[in-house]
Order: sequence, then C-alpha cells, then structure tokens
Amino acid sequence: MSFVLKLDQKRERHWKDVFHRLMPDMPFHFYPDYGDPADVEYIAMWRPEPDLFTRFPNLRLVFSLGAGVDQFDLSTFPDHVGLVKMIEPSLTAGMVEYVTAFVLATHRDLPLYRTQQMQHLWKPHTERRADRTSVGIMGMGTLGIPCAAAIRALGFNVRGWNRSHKDVDGVSMFVGNEQLDAFLAETDILISLLPLTPQTRGLFNNALFARLPAGASVINAGRGPQVVTDDLLAALDSGHLRWAVLDVTDPEPLPADSRLWDHPGVIITPHIASNTHPESGAESVINTIRNFQAGRTPEGLVDRQKRY
Amino acid sequence: MSFVLKLDQKRERHWKDVFHRLMPDMPFHFYPDYGDPADVEYIAMWRPEPDLFTRFPNLRLVFSLGAGVDQFDLSTFPDHVGLVKMIEPSLTAGMVEYVTAFVLATHRDLPLYRTQQMQHLWKPHTERRADRTSVGIMGMGTLGIPCAAAIRALGFNVRGWNRSHKDVDGVSMFVGNEQLDAFLAETDILISLLPLTPQTRGLFNNALFARLPAGASVINAGRGPQVVTDDLLAALDSGHLRWAVLDVTDPEPLPADSRLWDHPGVIITPHIASNTHPESGAESVINTIRNFQAGRTPEGLVDRQKRY
Repeated sequence: MSFVLKLDQKRERHWKDVFHRLMPDMPFHFYPDYGDPADVEYIAMWRPEPDLFTRFPNLRLVFSLGAGVDQFDLSTFPDHVGLVKMIEPSLTAGMVEYVTAFVLATHRDLPLYRTQQMQHLWKPHTERRADRTSVGIMGMGTLGIPCAAAIRALGFNVRGWNRSHKDVDGVSMFVGNEQLDAFLAETDILISLLPLTPQTRGLFNNALFARLPAGASVINAGRGPQVVTDDLLAALDSGHLRWAVLDVTDPEPLPADSRLWDHPGVIITPHIASNTHPESGAESVINTIRNFQAGRTPEGLVDRQKRY
Repeated sequence: MSFVLKLDQKRERHWKDVFHRLMPDMPFHFYPDYGDPADVEYIAMWRPEPDLFTRFPNLRLVFSLGAGVDQFDLSTFPDHVGLVKMIEPSLTAGMVEYVTAFVLATHRDLPLYRTQQMQHLWKPHTERRADRTSVGIMGMGTLGIPCAAAIRALGFNVRGWNRSHKDVDGVSMFVGNEQLDAFLAETDILISLLPLTPQTRGLFNNALFARLPAGASVINAGRGPQVVTDDLLAALDSGHLRWAVLDVTDPEPLPADSRLWDHPGVIITPHIASNTHPESGAESVINTIRNFQAGRTPEGLVDRQKRY
C-alpha cells in the first residue's frame, strides 16, 4: 500500500509533512519516484497520465487536486477504481471570496470606475440596491451552498438552480430543465459553478442569455467550454448583458488574440477563483482514505453517470 | 413648524412621498421655496448655507444628508440647534458592500489581474489565506461594526480601533492613541471609516504607514484630508504598501492632473462607497424628529466636543 502525489507546483513538501503527521504508516511518494507500482493504491493528481491504470494495477482511488474532474475520462476507469473530487475548506473559502468579490464588483459597477480612473474621470453613477437585486447560482453543491450564504448575508436575494432538488436555507431553489426559464427570468447576476459535462458544454449561449433580464451580468467560475464566446460577446455588444466575469476560458490559457481580453464588458482572471491549499488538501485526502479503508463511501466520490 | 429639504439631486419626490405617508401633518418644503422662514424647525441638507441661522431663527435640528458632518462648522451653531448625522440602513449596506468588495479585491490582487488583462497576460499568482490575514477598521461606529461583521464572516481576522472603548463580538478591539501602534503592527488591510476632525486630518502619513507590516494595503472610505497624498505615494513606490483604495480625496473631485490617477497601486472611486437612499433616509429623519419631539436625544446627534 502506498500513496503517490503528482504535483505541478512546488507545494509537495507541505503534503508530505501532513501525511507524516497524520498518516505516518502510509508510504508517501512523489511522482515519478513512486516505488513499486504494484503497491500504489492511492494517487492524487491534476492531469492524468494515459497509462495510469496499466502502470498502477492495484489503484483504488484517484484524487483530483481540484473541485473539477473533467480532465479525467471516466470511461477509461476500471470498475474497481474510484475518482474523488477535492472537497476542502480552503478551496471552498477561495470560491466564496471570488464569487462575493465579483457579485459586489458587478453590482457596484466597479470595473466602470476602473475605466474612468484611466480617463482621470470623477463621475459617480446611480447605484442599485442589493435587496432589489437577485443573484442566481447554477450548481448548488459543496461550493455553491456556502457562496449562496455569503451573498445572502450581504442582503441580495439569492436563487439556486440545481440538477437535483436541494433545500437551502433562505435560497429560492429551482430544479432541472423545466425550471430553468423561471430561474433565469429574474436573475440579475448569474453565477456558474457547474461541472463540465455533456449537458453543460455550450449551455451559456444566445438562447440562455436571451432569457436573462436586460442588464444582467454573468460570472463563470465553472468551466470555460460552458460559454459560447461569440454569443457572450454579442449579448454584451447589444447591451443585453452588462458584465461578464470569466475565471475560466476555452482554451486556457486564453490566447493573446482572443477578443475577450479587450472587450470593455469582460473581466478576465486566470483561473484563480479557488485553489486547493496543500495542508487542508492533504488533510481532506487523508480523511477520505480513512473513510474508504473503513468501508464508507468517500465524500467527493464521482458518480459515473452524472460525471461529477 | 415645518421641514425643509435642500437637495442637489433629483430625488426630492421620494422624500416628499415618504413624509406625506408617515408624517402628513408636517409642512414639507423644497429649498429655496421654504415658506415662512420663522416656521422652519427642521432642515436636511448636504452643504450648509452661511446664513442658515439668521435666515431660520427657529431651527431646532439640522440633518446632514450623509454620514459625515465635516462640511458643517459646529462653532457657528447656536446652542439651541442640534446637528444630526445620517444613520440609515441603505447607507450602512452600501458601506458594507464597498468595504467588503475592496477587502476581497486587495486580498486577492484583483487590480493586478485587471492590469494583466490589459496586457493579454494569463498569469496566476500565489494567493493568501483570509484566515491568516488581518483586516483593521479604524472607526467602529454605526458603519464600522457591520463592516467588521461582514469581513469576519468571510474568514478574516478582524481588528477594530476606536477613540472610545467598545466591545464588538469576534473583533479584537484597540482604543485610543496608546493602542494605535499595536493595532497597526498586525493589520494587513487597513480601513478608515473615521470622521474628519482635527485629530484625524493628516493621520495617514509616513509615520502611520511605517507602522503597518510590509505589504499592507489601505482603504480610505473616511475623508480625503485624512491621507497625506505624497506620503501615500512614497509608501506605495517603496513597496511597503501594496494597494491603496481611495473613495475620498482632497480635493473632490480629484483634479485631472493628480498623480494618484495613474499610480499602478492606487484604485480611485468617485465617493460612491455609500449614499443615503431617499426612502430610508426620509424614514430615518422622520424617526429622529419623532424622538426629538418626544423629548428623547436623537440617534446621530453630533457631540460638539468630538465633532462626530
């Protein structure tokens, strides 16, 4: 039995320290120095290798280092290997910060004041009231629910849309395709936290934007391919949409010649909304391994049908 | 007995509607059509007139239309006339939104990503953790306390500094000049909500900035003359300060040739942090008049010694 960590960044030491402290009996390796591949039962990584399952024949769990798992092809996973998405408090906190920051920025037209600053222009604009503004979150999972609570605490009306029914305190919930129109019709600031699936690819297109009220803004902290870029730019150009905040693009990094960079209604951040922190990420993985070893279904285990 | 409203903006109708509904017996006038000046007991205004007290000999209360009262010279007020600052829920909500937005923006380096966008540059930076970041609020009054609660709910460590002692749930409080150094020494993001008084004019100078930890940021939503602009620019240029967010400047509007406009570490907004909304502002004034008529001390009555 061993655990292998495959990391792009220089945060490996923190992971090892946490394993040493909390799970000292688990042999810990840094990829590609993984010891005997037959021993490897657990591996944590962001981007998978094509030969993952032939190289490690006794894998039990593959951990994604992020909340998204669309970089993995679940059809290649043997039946006995589970895929686990990251659920950890710092990842959640980062998303709450990002979403709250940009709900307030779009609500208060802060990017417009930034443009005016470049023009040396001191010009106040009429403000809107949070208690007369509806924020709609698509994807009410482990990230969406705390985002909804933070936005609600600031006085906004919060609506949630989800594939399956959920009760969330103080949030008007809408379920499935049949309630999507009603959800969109009164959403002034639309946030996507959706996973990338065949159902969500291209979801943010002309037809969806047209169902939002005039002057709505869109924040995409889900996945880039959910947005049809030409449709988004058209909706901004026509004035139907006010702001589009994109933390994710298609492809990433966003090519230097993309029209998104210079559009006055577009705010781009380079996929920084939320990151797994090494300490809390390692603790989450250890808890999941413990639960799995005790025969319990790990939190974050990806449903093969839903793909998230 | 009558009430006079002197407004620069076109929101007069909302005020009259609220008075008509809630205090129908009070004669209501729009300045300068104030009827018999001897009848005027209450007047609400932003900028005072020099002959206010000779023109209206029977004034009882002067209402500031904003949270600040530094535009009034209290030494000219007869003893029988009270000055009342605005305390109303929308004014508070606006300040909470502004302060929260810019705590998050500086914490997450969002202005840097905005600059990178202009350069078509996709480059993530290491993020900080809110639970290892201290936000310090100077001025823990009716605006500061709810701002502290909102920032604390996002996971930041919150510290408060005030002239007089206050207990605020979950906030480390510091009082007076003797505790200012200790307050500043561990404040990563410093917020001023202070009133403009002889004590706060020029308070944010070299000496104060030097006592903040390296890499700190400053948000001024108090009054422009509290900041010594040359000292602020020097602290930014040396790298000691990271970001300065200024909603208030000296003078206002900020002159087009000010060096603040183009500094890469400065974010300017044109005094939009928080505005009195006509409905809730009028309701607050009516409540204050009722309390005053019933012999109670009005909430928001300015202390002539403290000047706030």
